Amino acid sequence: MDKHEFFMKKALEEAYIAQSEGEIPVGAIVVCKDKIIARAHNQTERLNDVTAHAEMLAITSATASLGGKYLNDCTLYVTMEPCTMCGGALAWAQLGELVYGASDPHRGYARLTPPILHPKTKVVAGVLGEACADLLKAFFVRKRD
Amino acid sequence: MDKHEFFMKKALEEAYIAQSEGEIPVGAIVVCKDKIIARAHNQTERLNDVTAHAEMLAITSATASLGGKYLNDCTLYVTMEPCTMCGGALAWAQLGELVYGASDPHRGYARLTPPILHPKTKVVAGVLGEACADLLKAFFVRKRD
Repeated sequence: MDKHEFFMKKALEEAYIAQSEGEIPVGAIVVCKDKIIARAHNQTERLNDVTAHAEMLAITSATASLGGKYLNDCTLYVTMEPCTMCGGALAWAQLGELVYGASDPHRGYARLTPPILHPKTKVVAGVLGEACADLLKAFFVRKRD
Repeated sequence: MDKHEFFMKKALEEAYIAQSEGEIPVGAIVVCKDKIIARAHNQTERLNDVTAHAEMLAITSATASLGGKYLNDCTLYVTMEPCTMCGGALAWAQLGELVYGASDPHRGYARLTPPILHPKTKVVAGVLGEACADLLKAFFVRKRD
């Protein structure tokens, strides 16, 4: 299996945990030298905190694991395109590589000018994008019912 | 004394605490119905976490104090213009009013297009701007020595 798909499945596992907890189903993991050093899922409801996105929690967890503030040698996998807040946080972390699943044309970081990520961050979009998007769509359909 | 200046002095007190701890001197407070419900200062070094900006910590503290995720009826005072990450977080929090001191043309949220704050957030810039900026400049001069 493709390496990016393998790790995105791990991020999807986190998104399913979020779903089971009634959270918007977004999951993230951080990989460093082919090892998962952080796993997180959206916890805005549980923590009653709009800043508790999967990516934010994953950054804090990964830097705690590494003992350093920067993620230059890491890849963050997240099931949904990061928002403005998370994109800004990934820039501060000097993330090496960002791999995301579903796009978010309304809230995603990629619509912003000038570009907000660190200039050295590589980006791969659309990995298991359909599976990641389907999970989100199903969640919001249930919310409307 | 002008109300905004009164509360910005409280945010500056937080910035001085950051300075005394070797942190980039930025402080923030959240005011709701003329009462301070959260105080925070930059803790990126102490917490070894790039997401630990004064505004992020203030949002988390304020929402914990209120028992709700949103800050529609609150004013956040911060000594420096919020960055992309913090601006994005303030949008999620639906902040009622943002008052800041020093501008940050390189990293500040205001340079971004489309605008990233919540459309209902009122903004007042430059309150005690010189005092806020002087504190930052002095910090970076000492860092260079």
